[in-house]
Amino acid sequence: MKSVGHDEATWIWYPGDFEIWLHREVVLRREERGSVYPPFYRVDSPYCVVKFQCIYEIVEKEELALTVEGRYNVMIDGRMVPSGGGKLMLPKGKHSLVISVVNESGLPALFAKGITIASNTSWRVTSGNWNWIVPGCGQFHSAEERPSGYRLPSVRKEHSEATTFDDGTLLVDFGEETFGYVQLHGLQGEGTVILYYGESLEEALSEAECDTLDRIEVTSGASPDYTHGSSRAFRYVRVNPDPGVTIGGVSMLYEYLPVEYRGRFRCSNERINRIWDVAAHTMHLTTREFFLDGIKRDRWVWSGDASQSYLINYYSFFDEAVNRRTMIALRGKDPIETHLNTILDYSFYWIISLYDHYRYTGDLEFIRSIYPKMLDLVAFCRSRANERGMVEGKPGDWVFVDWADVSKEGELSFQQVLFARSLEVAADFARMFGDDATARELGDHAAALRRELFDTFWDEERGGLLHNRINGRLQPHMTRYANMFALLLGFLDAGRQRSVASNVLMNDQVLKIATPYMRFYELAALCEIGEHAYVASEMERYWGGMLDQGATSFWEVYDPEVQGSAQYAMYGRPFGKSLCHAWGAGPIYLLGKYFMGVKPLEAGYARFLIEPHLGGLAWFEGVVPANRDNIRIYMDETRITIRTGRSPGILRITSRIVPSCPTGNFRVIGPDRYELSLDKPDEDYAIAYANSESGVAGN
Amino acid sequence: MKSVGHDEATWIWYPGDFEIWLHREVVLRREERGSVYPPFYRVDSPYCVVKFQCIYEIVEKEELALTVEGRYNVMIDGRMVPSGGGKLMLPKGKHSLVISVVNESGLPALFAKGITIASNTSWRVTSGNWNWIVPGCGQFHSAEERPSGYRLPSVRKEHSEATTFDDGTLLVDFGEETFGYVQLHGLQGEGTVILYYGESLEEALSEAECDTLDRIEVTSGASPDYTHGSSRAFRYVRVNPDPGVTIGGVSMLYEYLPVEYRGRFRCSNERINRIWDVAAHTMHLTTREFFLDGIKRDRWVWSGDASQSYLINYYSFFDEAVNRRTMIALRGKDPIETHLNTILDYSFYWIISLYDHYRYTGDLEFIRSIYPKMLDLVAFCRSRANERGMVEGKPGDWVFVDWADVSKEGELSFQQVLFARSLEVAADFARMFGDDATARELGDHAAALRRELFDTFWDEERGGLLHNRINGRLQPHMTRYANMFALLLGFLDAGRQRSVASNVLMNDQVLKIATPYMRFYELAALCEIGEHAYVASEMERYWGGMLDQGATSFWEVYDPEVQGSAQYAMYGRPFGKSLCHAWGAGPIYLLGKYFMGVKPLEAGYARFLIEPHLGGLAWFEGVVPANRDNIRIYMDETRITIRTGRSPGILRITSRIVPSCPTGNFRVIGPDRYELSLDKPDEDYAIAYANSESGVAGN
Repeated sequence: MKSVGHDEATWIWYPGDFEIWLHREVVLRREERGSVYPPFYRVDSPYCVVKFQCIYEIVEKEELALTVEGRYNVMIDGRMVPSGGGKLMLPKGKHSLVISVVNESGLPALFAKGITIASNTSWRVTSGNWNWIVPGCGQFHSAEERPSGYRLPSVRKEHSEATTFDDGTLLVDFGEETFGYVQLHGLQGEGTVILYYGESLEEALSEAECDTLDRIEVTSGASPDYTHGSSRAFRYVRVNPDPGVTIGGVSMLYEYLPVEYRGRFRCSNERINRIWDVAAHTMHLTTREFFLDGIKRDRWVWSGDASQSYLINYYSFFDEAVNRRTMIALRGKDPIETHLNTILDYSFYWIISLYDHYRYTGDLEFIRSIYPKMLDLVAFCRSRANERGMVEGKPGDWVFVDWADVSKEGELSFQQVLFARSLEVAADFARMFGDDATARELGDHAAALRRELFDTFWDEERGGLLHNRINGRLQPHMTRYANMFALLLGFLDAGRQRSVASNVLMNDQVLKIATPYMRFYELAALCEIGEHAYVASEMERYWGGMLDQGATSFWEVYDPEVQGSAQYAMYGRPFGKSLCHAWGAGPIYLLGKYFMGVKPLEAGYARFLIEPHLGGLAWFEGVVPANRDNIRIYMDETRITIRTGRSPGILRITSRIVPSCPTGNFRVIGPDRYELSLDKPDEDYAIAYANSESGVAGN
Repeated sequence: MKSVGHDEATWIWYPGDFEIWLHREVVLRREERGSVYPPFYRVDSPYCVVKFQCIYEIVEKEELALTVEGRYNVMIDGRMVPSGGGKLMLPKGKHSLVISVVNESGLPALFAKGITIASNTSWRVTSGNWNWIVPGCGQFHSAEERPSGYRLPSVRKEHSEATTFDDGTLLVDFGEETFGYVQLHGLQGEGTVILYYGESLEEALSEAECDTLDRIEVTSGASPDYTHGSSRAFRYVRVNPDPGVTIGGVSMLYEYLPVEYRGRFRCSNERINRIWDVAAHTMHLTTREFFLDGIKRDRWVWSGDASQSYLINYYSFFDEAVNRRTMIALRGKDPIETHLNTILDYSFYWIISLYDHYRYTGDLEFIRSIYPKMLDLVAFCRSRANERGMVEGKPGDWVFVDWADVSKEGELSFQQVLFARSLEVAADFARMFGDDATARELGDHAAALRRELFDTFWDEERGGLLHNRINGRLQPHMTRYANMFALLLGFLDAGRQRSVASNVLMNDQVLKIATPYMRFYELAALCEIGEHAYVASEMERYWGGMLDQGATSFWEVYDPEVQGSAQYAMYGRPFGKSLCHAWGAGPIYLLGKYFMGVKPLEAGYARFLIEPHLGGLAWFEGVVPANRDNIRIYMDETRITIRTGRSPGILRITSRIVPSCPTGNFRVIGPDRYELSLDKPDEDYAIAYANSESGVAGN
């Protein structure tokens, strides 16, 4: 979205098509045992013919150098002109320059540079619908940096251990979950080498069942150093050469998205520190061209998974670009034939995530650019609502919710919560963009749906939202899903909050949540009701449990009851489970938002709020990236120190004494509740107070 | 659309995607002076990931051989199975076989053949929207005949004349307009050879201004025989070698669609015979993978142009497949963002042409397959109608009508006629498919629009439809367009027909029509009011005029007033005019439908009508392809002979005497009007009658 000065050249393309193209590239890289494994959902392609237009006025003729991804022609004032060899003479005066680019297999893109004329967002582009719009551009600012050459950087890494077996096979352990290209060194002879990859040792040792394997044909006379052409996810590689082949050594090219670890967290509990580190590693591995769900499986982009990655990103890398790329790719091209990824809930997560993105980054220009596509998705969702304004699974809809044995039939209260929030978000954006009629229409639907939601599903006696209604008949089941989302999204008044807290969230009789995916929201909801200490202990137990099993990245699913290699099974396959799954990185979000307690009060952190909680820890210290600022915070039982950035904010704490700060004055805002304005830029605030939380997580 | 037996294997793909892919290939072959020249309108791509599904039940396991265009994987009952080397063992019993195919640059397609299992229309396919539909298939019935290898056949042709100039250049004349690949023989030396192509001699001689040229690099040691890789349209080629290169000879590979010349026409007028032959040559050259507008320019597929090609096709080749390919390609993929080819009228022609296709071929299955896409286009058109139910040009719409200086502003009566007919057609199809609600809704709109059309535009005093209304103000202009279409489409009662005939069509004060495109409809309308003799003389004058200018195929535009090389100019370029343009082939339709007078009375020629007219000719004889039959007819002043096929029909004639026929009995149907049932299959009917037409076209 970075705008470029009118005389600076950058590669341009049809807006969104770089992401559409890259998404296609990335998701089609998934292979399983030698076969491509494309997504179930529709994979879109960029437009294959686009026209770029520049209306210019120059006082002297000048030469324009063209670099083009695809075949092309050039017209000036509607007449084709020669442009052989990528050189073009622009006549002086005012003229219309149109360059048509054709690329059937990749992304049509253009880089043009003259003395005063240069390809950038001052140009316009069309796909053939006669609508000339601002082109897309990105990080490609020279003729040589072709968009088609886009690759994440990589760096060589050595393994930490290697074992050679009697049969000549070699088992290599890179020490932790990683991603990249296996390299073989000192290759000699002729024959086949098979690489068996494992996220676990057991997987690498299973020739018959490991998810990923590669066959390499070694020919005599070939270079002794070989880098495999396809990237894989693994910790272990078993290298199995034919008898005629010898291998001197194994290494890898680690491929990664360069990000800055802006967020940090350290505390008195070493287990939680380790959880934070492994979560950050998990997050970094899955934060790539897009947010992948898992790096071995699915290696795809799923909207529900991504909605958590965005949030974790705000408390770790604050990499806005990967959020935008993911959102654009997920929305894809028109027409909308199914919900995003074909999943009902995933359309809603996408819309709600847009609002989060706006709140955290303040990037209204991005929202504006995707607003029409958001409205189309909202319209699609509404077109599938029933006469009560509610959504339910229709043919072709996958009603996901969670990997749990809950009913997906009829109207789910969970889906109505997400739908209502989506409508509110869309209405808010419509209002911001002056689209008042749309704002009113969507706002009315949202309000009616909220009423209908509670009228229908709220069970006064059991103190929570029931799960679903089938053919007009309310079902007696109560689950956590709708209740925790209603709480997180601010749908509950104080009384209902308390009721949901005790009757649902803290009620062991209600079906427990087994995936880190939904644990993310559950634990966030528990933090919202002040159960930080419980959340810290759950983190220790649940994520710590994976560490105890040897995890070096967090898993798709974890069941503490399952032991041994059985824990790697999923989808009926012994190694079907993803052992590096983005939604496993949730502790970063929980610790950043609810322990360090930092969140935006105004879009883009123009104002922030800090509401820190020890949650039973003796102390913590860390950093939360707050858009252009990094906010530092330290907390123990008696002291809090904060280092602010350029933007002002507010600190809210609970203290058994009246807290004090040499550089500011606390206000009383309730019993034991105090608030301090943090108005001074780049200021250190040292606060004395007395913690009142009852801890269980311990030092 | 040919369905294949369940045990016969054929290549399958996502329905419509072969045509979408081929259309992209074909239109992107246009080049102008070395640069690609893509269409202005959006060019679509096939889906890049599709899944093919076969639910099978077999008593013995069997091997399935796979040939795939693209990368793929195979799943049986949801589990990936090895399929290396294109072999796959199918377990016995009932199973679900799914083959996912990925092809980012071409058409994902599959050919599978086992003992009892074979890829064909018994399979299903999806693009990822969870809608499993019948796959598309075509003429590729063996593993080796890959769809990606689809090419029209070609045959070597020699030139009829060659001139060598002093400067070593060679001018080759192939004797008539042609299309294909230039071949050079006896090539020796090293350097560049430039080919300058000309539809006219003047164009081939103009290095600076000829539309098409190719540069060939000859290297020593290369084969002495060279075939150029790109097909071109030309009659003349000037071959200009560098001094270091010598050329022994020139020929070409003529590329063509194999068609049968089922329609035939011969008459007493040799000039009209020559017109028919040159029209047939024009028609054949432009009838290819799709109907092209012109073979040099635009080499694209335009809906308005194609709507005439379909009609001419019914009276010449009766090649249903090229009609279908063209209709599918023109409609393209969703979403509909603009009218077809961005032109308002062109959406209507497409819809109306569907009905013609149904009437002539009876292929309701094709209509059924494209019906949802037709409804979407109708909905798009209706979404752009104003509060009076009328269409007018909106931003992004190209309101074409004709290459003529007429107003395109506001509501054009011409567009309302086409729109109303489109709505009627859509309503008719809806009724046939039992979609009664749609039929009613569209029928109501059509009826209201017809009323509004006449209420608004019919000028009782001037006896015709006025041209347009701008911002509610009726304009005083009257043109032929709406009037002739209203007449052709049966919108006029007898009184208004007579009024339009004399006040508009036969009125020299009304702006004349200058393109063969609109002359097509004008002359058809004149035939409808019995002006066959005038039409024959106009054919002689207008098409004959092109012959006098040396035409070997008919042109995009012809103005008898312009002489010399100026007649090749168009679009501000000296050789911009297309000299082989499909819409120039109209005489075939006029002579077939209105002179030989054959047309279907029921869909697919289940019953036919013959209403022959000499139109001033002394005699004619010919054949009209009537779906599965060929109907032969001879006519002179006193005799008519007809040879029918399997289907029955009716002959209607005007005669000054009571006509007689040994094999049938005439009925009187009006003053001098008689009708004979032609009920006997494969029967010769020899009729004695006395012609009553007043002729002007002569012997």
